[in-house]
Amino acid sequence: MIVPATMRAWVLDGPNELHLVEKPVPVPKRAEVLVRIDAVAICATDLEIIEMGTPALIEGGPPFHKNFTPGHEYMGTVAALGPGVDEYRVGERVTVEIHAGCGQCKRCRQGMYTSCHNYGLNYGNVDKGHRANGFTTDGGFAEYAINNINTLSQVPDDMSDEEATLVVTAGTSMYGLTEVGGLVAGESVVVTGPGPIGLLAVAVAKALGASPVILSGTRDARLDIGRKLGADRVVNINKESLVSVVKEMTGRGADYVIECAGTETAINEAAQMTNRGGKICLAAFPHEPVLADIGALVKNNIYVYGIRGEGKSATRRAMALMAAKRFDATLIHTHTFPLAELRTALDYARNRTDDAIKVVVKMHGSEMRSRKESTR
Amino acid sequence: MIVPATMRAWVLDGPNELHLVEKPVPVPKRAEVLVRIDAVAICATDLEIIEMGTPALIEGGPPFHKNFTPGHEYMGTVAALGPGVDEYRVGERVTVEIHAGCGQCKRCRQGMYTSCHNYGLNYGNVDKGHRANGFTTDGGFAEYAINNINTLSQVPDDMSDEEATLVVTAGTSMYGLTEVGGLVAGESVVVTGPGPIGLLAVAVAKALGASPVILSGTRDARLDIGRKLGADRVVNINKESLVSVVKEMTGRGADYVIECAGTETAINEAAQMTNRGGKICLAAFPHEPVLADIGALVKNNIYVYGIRGEGKSATRRAMALMAAKRFDATLIHTHTFPLAELRTALDYARNRTDDAIKVVVKMHGSEMRSRKESTR
Amino acid sequence: MIVPATMRAWVLDGPNELHLVEKPVPVPKRAEVLVRIDAVAICATDLEIIEMGTPALIEGGPPFHKNFTPGHEYMGTVAALGPGVDEYRVGERVTVEIHAGCGQCKRCRQGMYTSCHNYGLNYGNVDKGHRANGFTTDGGFAEYAINNINTLSQVPDDMSDEEATLVVTAGTSMYGLTEVGGLVAGESVVVTGPGPIGLLAVAVAKALGASPVILSGTRDARLDIGRKLGADRVVNINKESLVSVVKEMTGRGADYVIECAGTETAINEAAQMTNRGGKICLAAFPHEPVLADIGALVKNNIYVYGIRGEGKSATRRAMALMAAKRFDATLIHTHTFPLAELRTALDYARNRTDDAIKVVVKMHGSEMRSRKESTR
Amino acid sequence: MIVPATMRAWVLDGPNELHLVEKPVPVPKRAEVLVRIDAVAICATDLEIIEMGTPALIEGGPPFHKNFTPGHEYMGTVAALGPGVDEYRVGERVTVEIHAGCGQCKRCRQGMYTSCHNYGLNYGNVDKGHRANGFTTDGGFAEYAINNINTLSQVPDDMSDEEATLVVTAGTSMYGLTEVGGLVAGESVVVTGPGPIGLLAVAVAKALGASPVILSGTRDARLDIGRKLGADRVVNINKESLVSVVKEMTGRGADYVIECAGTETAINEAAQMTNRGGKICLAAFPHEPVLADIGALVKNNIYVYGIRGEGKSATRRAMALMAAKRFDATLIHTHTFPLAELRTALDYARNRTDDAIKVVVKMHGSEMRSRKESTR
Repeated sequence: MIVPATMRAWVLDGPNELHLVEKPVPVPKRAEVLVRIDAVAICATDLEIIEMGTPALIEGGPPFHKNFTPGHEYMGTVAALGPGVDEYRVGERVTVEIHAGCGQCKRCRQGMYTSCHNYGLNYGNVDKGHRANGFTTDGGFAEYAINNINTLSQVPDDMSDEEATLVVTAGTSMYGLTEVGGLVAGESVVVTGPGPIGLLAVAVAKALGASPVILSGTRDARLDIGRKLGADRVVNINKESLVSVVKEMTGRGADYVIECAGTETAINEAAQMTNRGGKICLAAFPHEPVLADIGALVKNNIYVYGIRGEGKSATRRAMALMAAKRFDATLIHTHTFPLAELRTALDYARNRTDDAIKVVVKMHGSEMRSRKESTR
Repeated sequence: MIVPATMRAWVLDGPNELHLVEKPVPVPKRAEVLVRIDAVAICATDLEIIEMGTPALIEGGPPFHKNFTPGHEYMGTVAALGPGVDEYRVGERVTVEIHAGCGQCKRCRQGMYTSCHNYGLNYGNVDKGHRANGFTTDGGFAEYAINNINTLSQVPDDMSDEEATLVVTAGTSMYGLTEVGGLVAGESVVVTGPGPIGLLAVAVAKALGASPVILSGTRDARLDIGRKLGADRVVNINKESLVSVVKEMTGRGADYVIECAGTETAINEAAQMTNRGGKICLAAFPHEPVLADIGALVKNNIYVYGIRGEGKSATRRAMALMAAKRFDATLIHTHTFPLAELRTALDYARNRTDDAIKVVVKMHGSEMRSRKESTR
Repeated sequence: MIVPATMRAWVLDGPNELHLVEKPVPVPKRAEVLVRIDAVAICATDLEIIEMGTPALIEGGPPFHKNFTPGHEYMGTVAALGPGVDEYRVGERVTVEIHAGCGQCKRCRQGMYTSCHNYGLNYGNVDKGHRANGFTTDGGFAEYAINNINTLSQVPDDMSDEEATLVVTAGTSMYGLTEVGGLVAGESVVVTGPGPIGLLAVAVAKALGASPVILSGTRDARLDIGRKLGADRVVNINKESLVSVVKEMTGRGADYVIECAGTETAINEAAQMTNRGGKICLAAFPHEPVLADIGALVKNNIYVYGIRGEGKSATRRAMALMAAKRFDATLIHTHTFPLAELRTALDYARNRTDDAIKVVVKMHGSEMRSRKESTR
Repeated sequence: MIVPATMRAWVLDGPNELHLVEKPVPVPKRAEVLVRIDAVAICATDLEIIEMGTPALIEGGPPFHKNFTPGHEYMGTVAALGPGVDEYRVGERVTVEIHAGCGQCKRCRQGMYTSCHNYGLNYGNVDKGHRANGFTTDGGFAEYAINNINTLSQVPDDMSDEEATLVVTAGTSMYGLTEVGGLVAGESVVVTGPGPIGLLAVAVAKALGASPVILSGTRDARLDIGRKLGADRVVNINKESLVSVVKEMTGRGADYVIECAGTETAINEAAQMTNRGGKICLAAFPHEPVLADIGALVKNNIYVYGIRGEGKSATRRAMALMAAKRFDATLIHTHTFPLAELRTALDYARNRTDDAIKVVVKMHGSEMRSRKESTR
């Protein structure tokens, strides 16, 4: 594969200031490959980073005015190999996860690479080897990106580019279910918030045999997709009491709650509807402190797992389920735009224009903007 | 051992209304023994139950006007065996933990007996086999009590009655350290709140090799005891910033925080001073909702363990460390009263009269009220 | 439901001496129900018990000349409730797992009830509460049996009696996969030995997303069923080298091996084909010591899990997958006989007459002996 | 610190052919430091490597005729830092563990770096980043060595060089106890084989609160040291039956066995004396297949952990216990030699001359050969 010297890439100048520029194509080092990006999905975190910086903003680091390229839910084709890499070959289709830990800190050594203690220490004169593409290192709103080999998963031939971009979302859902124990067959799972992670949490939980799976939200269209992805019951919290429904269906409350709404109400309801000894995964969070009934956690021996991203190689487990067609992740993909129209794509995602859920940007070819038919 | 037909026992009529009555001595059933109580320590939860009922108050159940006897940190001598019991023998000194799960629910079957789903369902016509002595079944402010054999630990000959009452407190600390992973040698541990559980959390963490162990509080006298129990550093939060000290001593924050203060500040500081991928155990809780920075947990992949009591047989591990004299739990024992003076003993504990920490009630002999010399 | 005073039951006199007798119907105690048995499958262990006694034969205990009824893979209908039982109702269809731990020993308290330290101590004057129906307490070759409520799973209306008897087999496979970590999506799993547990291990591993799943054996007919249950590759070890195939397909060896053959060769090949840090579950065993390459385990950091039965509530997880129709367990059911023809049914199972795999005995109605059509 | 261009180093030509040569001092790369070696202990594995090659000998790789320097239990002083290293500073005393995983393979990503799937792939044109100093990369029988920063532990000022060399041995013992669960306070532990790992397994188990700890062996002098390190009971298997003693002391058998003898008898006795649901760690192994009662593992739900080295950062936990003076590891150090007398030192270790246990080689100064007084 011929790799050009420069590429088109969006870079973030100030808050919400993205420009399409020509940048050098980066060169992969040891244990790295160059990925030619074929498609990239937009995540709510992209919108936050573009507006506010990364969740753990580092002094002097990305993202503003650093020639930084955001975007982290991408897939593509291996275009070049770093020295000594024989795990992948040029031309292979791959999808990515975000985090490559430094490999030396105590958390990486425990296998907790998304909690790398050298998070973000990879710019200027410091390079501890940590990468979080689209967060602290250049990401996917560009034609090429560097990836550590341990962030890659192979894409089956019969999986579309668009579907492959959803693996990191499914991987985040899988990570949440992994951290609460992973063995959810026959256990009750409530997912609060029908965003992409919530919807795929329904799908993954169901694929692993959870029963019942209950999904809550405020928009019936989203809840309908949740039902198609396997939710046994959906609850529009504007019309029904989630806690009551859960108590009625489960008797003593849910075994697991995957909290994907990030609101004060959702967090407290999670505590109220989890049964004694049950577990809550926080996959979303409010940006301000909220009034929380901490006592409910202690009185009921509830454990709470704040998760960051898609650790413990969960993307590979998610990909295995998707490759086996255990659920149709494309149900959450609604719109496609070409790279040049990234700003429009971001607007669609931000404003949920035309009921947008996952908006995908395609890098190559002459795609026009489109809405996926299947979910109309 | 001759067991009388009746015994002296304190019973709880209304809130804060304790009366010393003559009650029938209960009869142990299958897998139970009768314990002749020799000493019982007072826990802050006793004071709450006596005033407000149990943390998970059950309609129609204990504690008020039900002839209910509170008290749960007791030790004594096996006085009689239930049918088929051969694990213990009459005359053996034992100390107890609180919870005997039902043995049938999903949590008990997972080994999570303190999260028994039949908690409290053991009165009236219902008996699922769950016992939480001093909470939902009769406890230790009496001359005798029933205990399931799996709640007992043997007391070494050279351990005093008073020290043996402290095993359930140490067991709670041990349970907290167990749930955050247990392997704390060389790891940094912060304990917030120098109450009995906090002080013994310092002792247990240190016994397991944690380093550094940092203890915070507001009373220097308590912090001094913490230092004697092994704290490498104590922080009077009225004089110093705990978060700053922890960050300075650990670099990236603490690996583990055992939160024993139960205040809004302590909870939020726990989140701020725990490093990425670190863990927080909540062993105390505020009685009202508090403003909590939930986002800090998610952004830093922090896990939070609300613990109830002393599960996973942690009392036995605590007893093993105490029997091996790895720490001197008696440093937290300050006062002793005879059974008849329970109300005074409770007042001392409630008001921290004379710097009281653990107040112990002795059941037998002619003990006068006393203050333990060693900690004056 | 009217429960008669007596029932037909097979009892084991001497080795291989089974007689059909009239016995009193047992009465359920606390936390127990009486199950009217509708169907019971025959397990290889039944054949061993009938010939040789239980794996952990207890002096003075079952099975010989004790009026003991073997059989443990049964399902039926709740016929009566013990005192206080409200978890199930009369008339409900249930299937069972074997072990009800004592609930008091250290293993039960850890959630490891199949490793109960009071195994078998439930006869004569001793009753520690342990039950292993068909092993140490009366089992299912009879019209009724007692079951602890924690051994029951509900049977969906659309699941046949015959299929429901297979849940304990699937549960054993699920327990093995649970103990090796449970998170097998995308991981390589080799199952050695296409007996019932091996075949359903293929099905469960595949349902959980494992890939590739490789099954080995010597009989092509069995391997074909394994392929229908999801095996990506089957290896007839009389024709191919299993170790070579596994190394070729996986590169560095299998992540997990579920050993269900119980031969010296299978055990050593398991060690040879497991990759560094991989795990082996032993679900079968040779009856004599075998020459084993123990060094391979140490040099490659391999962990080995000898499992007994279907612990950690794995039957309920297996039932959840079967209820969701993730695999067709009935592919391993080949023959059906009426209760009166148990001896013939056992012969079919023992001799694999007519390619028998799972032979099921039906208790009621006028069933004639039959061969299931679907697998002819 | 001035680092010379060349150093004295022993290299392995053919089997048992060691020569002292002048070699270039290696240069640390990213995430590496150069360690000036101050002391190195001799391990039985060193003797095997020198005679037979590494346990997992790689075609074309070390050790023979490759200018390879063996030796892995060393400590020293940081002499130079690789680019970007700020975790350590020049002049700091450090001790090492053996394994630095590649950081990219599935096992490293799980935190199982001693099971790195790129073990040994670090020579010729291949460099996956894995290092196992003294096994596949140059080790410690030299004046300098390269170490990845994640293999280092700081040495307290008051710990002697000789004691610091023992940390990797204690770390191996700690790793074994970690893998069987780590929470051994009050649990019964049997250690078979009083070699260095066995003796320190006694010490670590006791430090963590295990009780009783039983040590078996054939040499009373070794068993006496075990008693000093905390064994509650020692069993000379030439005089007593280990299985009988264990059964008598524990009732139902040991909770954990740490097998450090590597003989057929020890392995089978481990299976016989472990209780239902108990665990066995294999820290040694026979070089040939042995007749093993595999069935005992399955019938009793016993799990077996073959461990390789000192994973899961166990050396740091071991160092924490040693720094806190929880046990006196120097009880196993018997002899000291200067670097030039390595061959004599190896002979002492090989032949247990003068009751040698751990023989240490000191790199600097004018030490004469000596026998440590304290254990005479």
